[in-house]
Amino acid sequence: MHTILNLLIGPPLPTQRLASERLNKIRALAAFSPDALSSIAYANQEIFLGLAIAGAAGLAYSLPIGLVIVGILVTVAISYAQTLPAYPTGGGSYTVASANLGRRIGLLAASCLLIDYVLTAAVSLTAGVAAIASAFPALWPYRVVLSLAFLVLITLANLRGLRESGTLMAIPVYFFLGSYLLMLAVGLVKALLGSPESFSATAPTPTEPLTAWLVLHALAAGCTALTGIEAISNGVPAFRPPEAKNAVRTLLVMALLMGTLFLGSIGLTQYFAVVAKADETILSALVRRVLGTNILYVMVQVATLLILVVAANTSFAGFPRVASLLAQDGYAPRQLSFLGDRLVFSNGMVLLAGLTGLLIVVFGGDTHALIPLFAVGVFLAFTLSQTGMVVHWLRVRGPLWGLKATINGVGALATTITLGVVLISKFMAGAWVVVLLIPLLLLAFYTVKQHYQEVARQLTLRGATPETAAEPLRSPRIVLPVSGVHRGIVEALRYARSISDQVTAVYVEINPGDADRVRQQWEKWGQGVPLVVVPSPYRSIAGPLLEYLDRLDAESGDGQFASILLPEFVPARWWQHLLHNQTAWLLKLELLYRRRRFGKVRAIIDIPWYLRE
Amino acid sequence: MHTILNLLIGPPLPTQRLASERLNKIRALAAFSPDALSSIAYANQEIFLGLAIAGAAGLAYSLPIGLVIVGILVTVAISYAQTLPAYPTGGGSYTVASANLGRRIGLLAASCLLIDYVLTAAVSLTAGVAAIASAFPALWPYRVVLSLAFLVLITLANLRGLRESGTLMAIPVYFFLGSYLLMLAVGLVKALLGSPESFSATAPTPTEPLTAWLVLHALAAGCTALTGIEAISNGVPAFRPPEAKNAVRTLLVMALLMGTLFLGSIGLTQYFAVVAKADETILSALVRRVLGTNILYVMVQVATLLILVVAANTSFAGFPRVASLLAQDGYAPRQLSFLGDRLVFSNGMVLLAGLTGLLIVVFGGDTHALIPLFAVGVFLAFTLSQTGMVVHWLRVRGPLWGLKATINGVGALATTITLGVVLISKFMAGAWVVVLLIPLLLLAFYTVKQHYQEVARQLTLRGATPETAAEPLRSPRIVLPVSGVHRGIVEALRYARSISDQVTAVYVEINPGDADRVRQQWEKWGQGVPLVVVPSPYRSIAGPLLEYLDRLDAESGDGQFASILLPEFVPARWWQHLLHNQTAWLLKLELLYRRRRFGKVRAIIDIPWYLRE
Repeated sequence: MHTILNLLIGPPLPTQRLASERLNKIRALAAFSPDALSSIAYANQEIFLGLAIAGAAGLAYSLPIGLVIVGILVTVAISYAQTLPAYPTGGGSYTVASANLGRRIGLLAASCLLIDYVLTAAVSLTAGVAAIASAFPALWPYRVVLSLAFLVLITLANLRGLRESGTLMAIPVYFFLGSYLLMLAVGLVKALLGSPESFSATAPTPTEPLTAWLVLHALAAGCTALTGIEAISNGVPAFRPPEAKNAVRTLLVMALLMGTLFLGSIGLTQYFAVVAKADETILSALVRRVLGTNILYVMVQVATLLILVVAANTSFAGFPRVASLLAQDGYAPRQLSFLGDRLVFSNGMVLLAGLTGLLIVVFGGDTHALIPLFAVGVFLAFTLSQTGMVVHWLRVRGPLWGLKATINGVGALATTITLGVVLISKFMAGAWVVVLLIPLLLLAFYTVKQHYQEVARQLTLRGATPETAAEPLRSPRIVLPVSGVHRGIVEALRYARSISDQVTAVYVEINPGDADRVRQQWEKWGQGVPLVVVPSPYRSIAGPLLEYLDRLDAESGDGQFASILLPEFVPARWWQHLLHNQTAWLLKLELLYRRRRFGKVRAIIDIPWYLRE
Repeated sequence: MHTILNLLIGPPLPTQRLASERLNKIRALAAFSPDALSSIAYANQEIFLGLAIAGAAGLAYSLPIGLVIVGILVTVAISYAQTLPAYPTGGGSYTVASANLGRRIGLLAASCLLIDYVLTAAVSLTAGVAAIASAFPALWPYRVVLSLAFLVLITLANLRGLRESGTLMAIPVYFFLGSYLLMLAVGLVKALLGSPESFSATAPTPTEPLTAWLVLHALAAGCTALTGIEAISNGVPAFRPPEAKNAVRTLLVMALLMGTLFLGSIGLTQYFAVVAKADETILSALVRRVLGTNILYVMVQVATLLILVVAANTSFAGFPRVASLLAQDGYAPRQLSFLGDRLVFSNGMVLLAGLTGLLIVVFGGDTHALIPLFAVGVFLAFTLSQTGMVVHWLRVRGPLWGLKATINGVGALATTITLGVVLISKFMAGAWVVVLLIPLLLLAFYTVKQHYQEVARQLTLRGATPETAAEPLRSPRIVLPVSGVHRGIVEALRYARSISDQVTAVYVEINPGDADRVRQQWEKWGQGVPLVVVPSPYRSIAGPLLEYLDRLDAESGDGQFASILLPEFVPARWWQHLLHNQTAWLLKLELLYRRRRFGKVRAIIDIPWYLRE
C-alpha cells in the first residue's frame, strides 16, 4: 500500500521546501496563462455552434460577437491590473470580496470559485480531448474515457507535488502560442492573396430563424473566452521584484495574446467561411483549411490538447487553496487544510478530481453541455471581485483613487451585464444548476462552521476544575464475546485480565445446543472467568449481546458502562480481510449506532490476532 | 439506519419459520418454470438476429433451427426426469457432480452455476425491459436504468424474505402462459385462413453470405431457450407426496409448454415472414402482426416483462443457496452461509445483485451482448450433471440401470455437442470471458479453503496447556495521543488511568512551538500523567507516533507492546462524521498496516466522546 503510493506520488517532503523560487516574466506567463489562452478552444466552438443553427446569416455574426467579447476582455484586464498592486500578497475573489464586502459576500465568491475550478478542469479536459479527436476521428466515441485518463494523469502528477511552474509547464504553453501564431500568420497571408468567401456556400441549412435572442445566446457562450484572466491575481508573490509591476506587465501581455488569438481565429473563420462537421471542432476545421490536413495540422491539435491539459492543471492549484482557506476559517471540513506529506493539499486535490470526473461522466464528456454551467460562476466572481475593488478605493483612497474606483466600477458594470446576459440566455440550458448549487454550498459552509463552534462549546474545560472533571474512575467491567475456544480468545482473555478483574465472557448461541461444547472447553481454558450463554432465536449476534450489556450496566448500578473487548484477526494479505472479522465489524457498527442513540459511551478494545500467511 | 432497513425489508423472523409449506402441481409449475418458459423471449430474438444478417435466405432457417433445439430440449428433459427420483432431497449440478465425479468436478459445476445465476438475472431483466420498450419506444434509451430499477426492486423483495412461491409469483406466470397461448391460437387461425408469406418481401438486405457457420451461430445462440429447465431438480422436497412423481410430471408439463411456446412462436414468425425493427424485439413484432397494435398487444408485452422479472427472481433463490453450500464447505467467504434475520442468505443476495448490476451496466443493458456469455456455463453444468448421473447409475445399479445410464448418456452427449457448438461459435463474441472466469473462480475456491485451513491450524489449542498458553500478563503500558486539552481528552485519560498505572500522553508537534500551550494546560489537567512531545517535520501524525511507540517497546524490554488509546468523536448526525476523526481513522489504518508488516499486535482502545447536536 505505502510502497505503491510512494511509487506513484513519490517520497514525502519536509516543510522547509515550501518557500519556492521566484519566476521571471517568461516563466510567469507560462505559469499563469494556460487557462486564459486555451479558452479560445471552447469559446470559438460555442460561438460557432450557437450561430450555425441560423445558417449562413447567423455565422455572419461571428466577428461582431468576437469584437464585443474583446471589448469586455480589455475592460476586465485593465480592471484586474489595478487589483495586483493593491493586493500584492494574493488578490483572489475570495480575499478581495471578504476584505471589502464582508464575510458573507466573501463566502459567496468562494462558492463561485470552487464551482469554477471544477468546471475549468472538466471543460478544459473535454475540450482538449475534442481537439485531438478531431484529428483522429476514431477516438471520438472514447472521449469520456480519454478525458478521465488525462484527469487521472494530472491528479497523480499533482499529488506528487508538481511544482514545475516555469519549466515543464512552459513547453506546452509556448508550443501552443508558437503554433497558433504561425497558423494565424499563414492564414493572414492566404487571406491577403485570396478573397473573402461566403458562408452561404458552406453553412448548414438553418434550423432556426436568426433572432436577437440567438445572437445573445452565442455571445453569452463566447464569453467563456475570458475565463482564466484572473489567475495572476493570486500569484503576485511568485514574481521577481518589483513584483506588482512585473505582474501587471505579464497580465497585459497575456490579455494582448488572448485578444490576438481569439480575434485572429474568429476573423479567419469568417473570412474563409469555415464550417465544422459533427465530429470536429471549428478550430480544427480552421487549421485544416489554413494549413491543410498534414503533420502541421496534427501538431496544432496536439498543442491544443496539451495547453488544455495544462489549463485543467491550474485548477489543482486553485481549488485546494480556496478549500484550505475555507477550512482554516472553519467553513469546510478541517482535513481540507492539512498539508499532505508531499506539501500539497492532497485532500482538496482528490475532492477536485472526484467532482471533475463526475461532471465528465454525467455530461458525457461533451464540452458544449458543460459550458452553460461555466460562465455564471466566472462572471459572478469577476463582479464580486471588481465591486470589492471599488469599495477598496473608496475606503483606502490614496492617489488617483477616484479614477481607480471608476475603472473598477466600469469593470464591475461590464461583468455584471455579462453575468445577466449569461444567466438569462443560459438558464434553462444548465445555468440553473449553478444558481441552485451556490446557495447550497453557502448553506454547507455555515452548517460546518456552526457544527465546529458547537463542538468547541461542548469540549471546553472553561468553568471546570481538575478535581471534579478528572475524578478517578473505577476499573471497568469488561465483556468478551467468544465465538469458540481458540488461541486468539485465550490471548484476548489474558489481555482483559491484565486491565481489569471484572471480566465476563459471553457466547451467543444461534443453534440451540451449540453452547455445550464451548462450555466444556471453557472449563479448561477460561482462566477462571465466568462464561455467560445468551440465546439468539433471530440468529443475530449483535442484538442479544447488546441487550446483555445493557442488563449488566443496569444491574451494576454504578453508572459506568461496561467496556467491550473484540478479538480481531489481522490477516497477512488484503483479500483475506474479506474472509474474517465480519462479526466484529457489525458489532462495532451496532455499538456506534446504539451509543449514538442512547448516549452509551462504551469503550471498545480491539485485540488483534496476527495471522501468518 | 435500522428503522429504514426495517421499513424496506421488514422485521426479523425466528428460525422456526424455515419449514415451508408444500406446493401442489399448479403452484409448483409457477414456482419452477418462469426461467424456463421466459427463455423464448431472448432465444427467439437471438435466432432472428443471427439469421437476419443473411437476409431472407438466412431467416428461412428459423424453423429448422427451432426443431433442432426442441430435439435437444426433449433429450435434456427426459434426462433430468431421471435425476429427480434419484436425488429427491435436491439434485442440482453441484450436488450430483460432487457426489459422482468428485469434489473438483463438483466445484467446476458450482462455478458454472454461480455464473449462470448472475447471467440469468441480467439477461432476464434486460430482455424484460426490451419487451416493454418495444411497446413504448420512448423507453428504449433508458433500458439500463429500467433494468437496474427492476433489479433493485426484486433485491429488496428478496431481502424481505419473499417466499410467495405459489401465490404472488403464480399470477405473472399464468398470465404469461395464457396470453401467449391465446396469441399462438389466434395466429394459428389467421395462418390457416391466409397463406404463408415470404421473407424475400420483408427481410433486410443481407450484409453477410449465408454459410453453415452463420446457421451454427444462430443455433448456438438459440440454445439459450433451454436455460431454466434444470430448476426443478433442486426443488423436489417442496412438492406434495409422492414428491418425485409429482416433480417429474411437472417437469414434463413444463418441457411440453416450453416446446409449444418456442416452436409455435418461431413457426408463426416464419409463416408470416415477420421482421423486427432496431428498437423492437422479434416477439413483439410477431405479437403486433398477429394481434395488431392494440391493448391486447400491450398486455402480452407486459406479461413478457413480468415473467422475465420473475425469472430473474429465481436467481435470488439459486445463487445464495449454491454460495452458502460452498461457504459451508469452506470454499467461499463464511458470511455467505449466514442466514440473515429475514431467514434468507442476505449476503449472497447482495452479492448477486451487485454482480448483476455490474453486468447490466457494462453490457449497456443489451441482452444480445450478454447472450454469448450465457450458454457456456449452462451447457457445461448440464453436461456435468448428466455425466454425473451416468456414473450414478453405474455405481448404484438398481432396476433398469443400463437403460437409465444410456438415457443420461444420450443427454450428456447432446449437451456436450451443444456446448462445443456454443463454445466454438461464440468464443470471440464473449464466451471467452466465461472460459477465463471459470478457472479463476476455481482458484478462488481453493485459495479460500486453504486459508481457512491454515487459520484453523494457527488457532488450535491442541498440544498447548492452560499453564503455558494462559499465563497472566503484566498490566499494559498505555499511550494516549493528544491533539489538545479538552473534555474528551480528560475523559479518555480517566479511562486510561482506570485500567493501567503506566500511562503516557503524546503530542505530535507539526508547527514548531505549538507544543508550549499544550504543555502549559497539561500541567493543570494532566492528572499527573507525563506528556511527551514528538516533533514532526514531515507533518505526518502517524509516522512520529508509531516511531515513538516502537521506541517505547524497545526500551521496556519486557516483550509486551504498548496499547494505544484513541479518543473518538461520535457525532449526532451521519454527515458530521465527515468533519471528525480523520486522524483517528488514519492512525488505525497505519497501525493495522504496521502490525501486519512487523507483527506488532498492539491493542487499540477506542474511547468514544458523544457529541450532542
